[in-house]
Amino acid sequence: MGADKSICDLIKNYKPGYSLEQNFYKNPELYERELEKIFFQNWFLAGHTSQIQNAGDYFLLDFANESIIITRNKEGKVKAHLNVCRHRGSRICLEKNGNAKSFTCPYHAWSYDLDGNLIAARIMADDFEKSENGLHKVHVELVGGLIFISLAEKPLSLNAMKDDLKDVFKQFGFDNMKLAMQKSYPVKSNWKLAVENYQECYHCAPSHKDFAKIHAMAQSPEKFNRQKEALRENPPSIVRTKASSFYFDLAIPGEEGYQYDRNPLLPGKLSGSKDGKPVAPLLGDLKKYDGAASEFLVGPVTFFLIYDDHMIGYRFLPTTIDDCICDLFWFVRADAVEGKDYNQGDLSWLWHVTILDDEEIIVNNQKGVNSKYYKPGRLSEMEHFPQHFLNWYLQAIS
Amino acid sequence: MGADKSICDLIKNYKPGYSLEQNFYKNPELYERELEKIFFQNWFLAGHTSQIQNAGDYFLLDFANESIIITRNKEGKVKAHLNVCRHRGSRICLEKNGNAKSFTCPYHAWSYDLDGNLIAARIMADDFEKSENGLHKVHVELVGGLIFISLAEKPLSLNAMKDDLKDVFKQFGFDNMKLAMQKSYPVKSNWKLAVENYQECYHCAPSHKDFAKIHAMAQSPEKFNRQKEALRENPPSIVRTKASSFYFDLAIPGEEGYQYDRNPLLPGKLSGSKDGKPVAPLLGDLKKYDGAASEFLVGPVTFFLIYDDHMIGYRFLPTTIDDCICDLFWFVRADAVEGKDYNQGDLSWLWHVTILDDEEIIVNNQKGVNSKYYKPGRLSEMEHFPQHFLNWYLQAIS
Amino acid sequence: MGADKSICDLIKNYKPGYSLEQNFYKNPELYERELEKIFFQNWFLAGHTSQIQNAGDYFLLDFANESIIITRNKEGKVKAHLNVCRHRGSRICLEKNGNAKSFTCPYHAWSYDLDGNLIAARIMADDFEKSENGLHKVHVELVGGLIFISLAEKPLSLNAMKDDLKDVFKQFGFDNMKLAMQKSYPVKSNWKLAVENYQECYHCAPSHKDFAKIHAMAQSPEKFNRQKEALRENPPSIVRTKASSFYFDLAIPGEEGYQYDRNPLLPGKLSGSKDGKPVAPLLGDLKKYDGAASEFLVGPVTFFLIYDDHMIGYRFLPTTIDDCICDLFWFVRADAVEGKDYNQGDLSWLWHVTILDDEEIIVNNQKGVNSKYYKPGRLSEMEHFPQHFLNWYLQAIS
Repeated sequence: MGADKSICDLIKNYKPGYSLEQNFYKNPELYERELEKIFFQNWFLAGHTSQIQNAGDYFLLDFANESIIITRNKEGKVKAHLNVCRHRGSRICLEKNGNAKSFTCPYHAWSYDLDGNLIAARIMADDFEKSENGLHKVHVELVGGLIFISLAEKPLSLNAMKDDLKDVFKQFGFDNMKLAMQKSYPVKSNWKLAVENYQECYHCAPSHKDFAKIHAMAQSPEKFNRQKEALRENPPSIVRTKASSFYFDLAIPGEEGYQYDRNPLLPGKLSGSKDGKPVAPLLGDLKKYDGAASEFLVGPVTFFLIYDDHMIGYRFLPTTIDDCICDLFWFVRADAVEGKDYNQGDLSWLWHVTILDDEEIIVNNQKGVNSKYYKPGRLSEMEHFPQHFLNWYLQAIS
Repeated sequence: MGADKSICDLIKNYKPGYSLEQNFYKNPELYERELEKIFFQNWFLAGHTSQIQNAGDYFLLDFANESIIITRNKEGKVKAHLNVCRHRGSRICLEKNGNAKSFTCPYHAWSYDLDGNLIAARIMADDFEKSENGLHKVHVELVGGLIFISLAEKPLSLNAMKDDLKDVFKQFGFDNMKLAMQKSYPVKSNWKLAVENYQECYHCAPSHKDFAKIHAMAQSPEKFNRQKEALRENPPSIVRTKASSFYFDLAIPGEEGYQYDRNPLLPGKLSGSKDGKPVAPLLGDLKKYDGAASEFLVGPVTFFLIYDDHMIGYRFLPTTIDDCICDLFWFVRADAVEGKDYNQGDLSWLWHVTILDDEEIIVNNQKGVNSKYYKPGRLSEMEHFPQHFLNWYLQAIS
Repeated sequence: MGADKSICDLIKNYKPGYSLEQNFYKNPELYERELEKIFFQNWFLAGHTSQIQNAGDYFLLDFANESIIITRNKEGKVKAHLNVCRHRGSRICLEKNGNAKSFTCPYHAWSYDLDGNLIAARIMADDFEKSENGLHKVHVELVGGLIFISLAEKPLSLNAMKDDLKDVFKQFGFDNMKLAMQKSYPVKSNWKLAVENYQECYHCAPSHKDFAKIHAMAQSPEKFNRQKEALRENPPSIVRTKASSFYFDLAIPGEEGYQYDRNPLLPGKLSGSKDGKPVAPLLGDLKKYDGAASEFLVGPVTFFLIYDDHMIGYRFLPTTIDDCICDLFWFVRADAVEGKDYNQGDLSWLWHVTILDDEEIIVNNQKGVNSKYYKPGRLSEMEHFPQHFLNWYLQAIS
């Protein structure tokens, strides 16, 4: 009750338009509540169907104290289960990815099929029911080839998003992508400082020189809005420019929050690369580069940036209260060939250097927030996304 | 009181026949209570008299926040004391082992004799009583050359065990062994997961391929029991086959728990080695190999496996709530000569590879048990030893 | 309240003449209170004006979760501010030292002048007041070139000390020194064990063989006092021998505690060096070596030892409850030239080896204090300084 009371007070005392109190980043009970109310509830990106093309292909997704096996079953369906044996709890899969006919626990050899059913347990009493000892199931939904999971008992719906953005998924060929590359960036900070960082471009001009050479949004709001207005009024390509703003606190009740928007690049820039030139074949139905990029987010910790020729996925997951991992995913057309149509170095350059900058920024933010003399500070209008995130967050943990 | 209440609830809610709730492995108050009620009470193996042959020879035994000096005094008696200076608390002995005429604290040079009496303390007030400032004494008992210690004020008795197993100690020559080798294996898990692992052979077949080539008990209970029955009915040697089952919850009141049993090896196997062939001269009074091995345990964390030609000791001690150390001791006849009668590599091969397997198993068990989705699972009949251990453990911490 | 109660009990149960209970070194609430009542109140050494000779020169001082920027402003005044941006809290200065026209936060480019005033914050709402968003100020006072800081709102006065010791500062030329060398020694112990260690020479004879070859105080109190008496009665030089004992619990109300005393070196020794020979030009007004050294302390964690030709500063600051950092500062005359008048190796030899000894001693003290069997022990008369420190400490945290 003491813990609940202090979390309650924290929430009640939050001053809109300001950053969070220090305690939001260091209260261990609050962290437990965040796991419960956010990471065991909301949807987030697990990976891509191109990682598990055949029955029995699997990969692991680890965060906090959890490990989840994502696999394709014999019927070709994507399934997800907790990597926790129902006997004495051992991890079952130890390899990060692979192919398995079934999952056999290395400890006492209890064996589960690709649907998580317990199919073998040696020398157990007669009244032991295998059917009651399957692996804990995790909800899975596909958005094109993107695999989303939710650990909730009754997850939020993704239908509004799927319906609304049908045209976008078609234009960019979401059904026709592959994962070209994935890279994990551990950050020594509370996960919220990393998410807050991702959501605002107030820091882009001072911190991300390379990003600021490509993206119009690193400029002042006036400049940026003028260019965005022009893009919306005269869309140079088939890509939808109409925004959908159901993110965070603006989400439809019962539906997972999502957002779509299209933003201009700087004049002459065509893609998110070192020099703004293309780095892969055009996605989906696109016939030409139009000097813009789309933002797309689903749930609180998964963000996409869609250039005309590739898509970046960003996912933030906590490891402990003081550490998180940011995973970057680079997607290209399914038929693009590495070394011919694209190469990993050029494809990943911009966001690799950008996240390395961010890593340092976020860690120094955490260090300062740890000070007794840190006080919540006033946010800029360029930080309205984090403000929406904070509003939602405060509701989510209440 | 909150802490006591939650430990009480944990104990009350335990479901017999199942593994423990997650909280048993992560509640810090419970860990403190385990230290108090188990590690500062029960007997465990400290080492062997062959390690301290001369007066002043000593070795250190460290666990949790404790360090204990085991030494031989001028009269040839084995003594044990806390390695904590009575002045300002410094560690006194810093070397893992050695020989000392007396123990002089490196900080302010207070000096203690081999019986722990303070014999020198410079420049202290006249009313300072050296006689009240000796080192804290630890109880010591010898079983043959094995040195057992208890940190209890009034330790449990070892007499029932010593009396009951006199013939066994004679047959194996417990008075005539030496420590041939000792090795420490740190395990990143709560100590109970390591002890539970040691106590059951349900995991032997899937996890310990090398062990399973030697020991009959890795087989199904039916097969194993048939072979064991045969051994008991027609003992092929002088070694006692009658079991003594006073372990854990079956212990005699006021006496430390212990157990003795003799189990068959697989046909043709003579010792616990890579190929089942002898690795050292026969122990004690034995005249021939009889294809069996004896189990012997004393207290909750010390286990022995006695082959005809050597004995393994296993000791589990916590370092923190999340880490423990498993120490393995290899004993041979006192007059066996390394390089001639045995060599360390062959002697230690089987249990070295076995514990390396276990290390990995236990760590993966801990990882899974940390999951929010871990639930206590049903135990197999091959896990009845851990069940006895758990019953005892729940009483011990109550 | 539980925490306050247990701290209260700890304080109440302290037995004068003995070392502290274990809990003083491991209670996390007490550690928080120590930060509040000691490290955010009392004065301690930050560094020396010779480190920041020009406007904009700065260096960082880090301890616990804090980072402080010490700089020289355009008017030549020494200023200190918290290294915490008033926007979202980021560290502003990342380099340990350097020169800056202003301090610009690397995150969102908020910019502060050398007096800590916010001079630029892009794209903020009209009602945002820059004047209310300056850096948090830290009090600074100079003692000669020594820079002291206090994080208190209303710091204790240093006037009594400055007034009393005017002659000492003049004789040793405190206005005319420079920092020749600084070195950080992290110690894996609670900060109090390190401070207690510094304050007594009961351990010098057994632990510091090199120190004991130079300093008379490593001997028995009788011997030492005889030599000290002689020094006081026939001062061989101009240096003040009259002690000022206002340290710790003896401090004047409203004034920071301080102490001055002069102690003999061993016959024939002139300075704190490997062989007792000079290692730098005479300080201040001194015309000859007189075989003695002065002790000078200000506040609870800053200690100086003044030889005729150089001065050592010692500063202890906590990193966490279990770790602290001891910083050593070596000062020489401002006009002394490295490589000609002194060299760093010879200058720092004695105290470098002495603190390496201490590091080991203190860590072993901490290990023993962690034992359940540690009990507060009786102090020697050679430990009356720590006794004064403990008396003061108990008041300070009450």
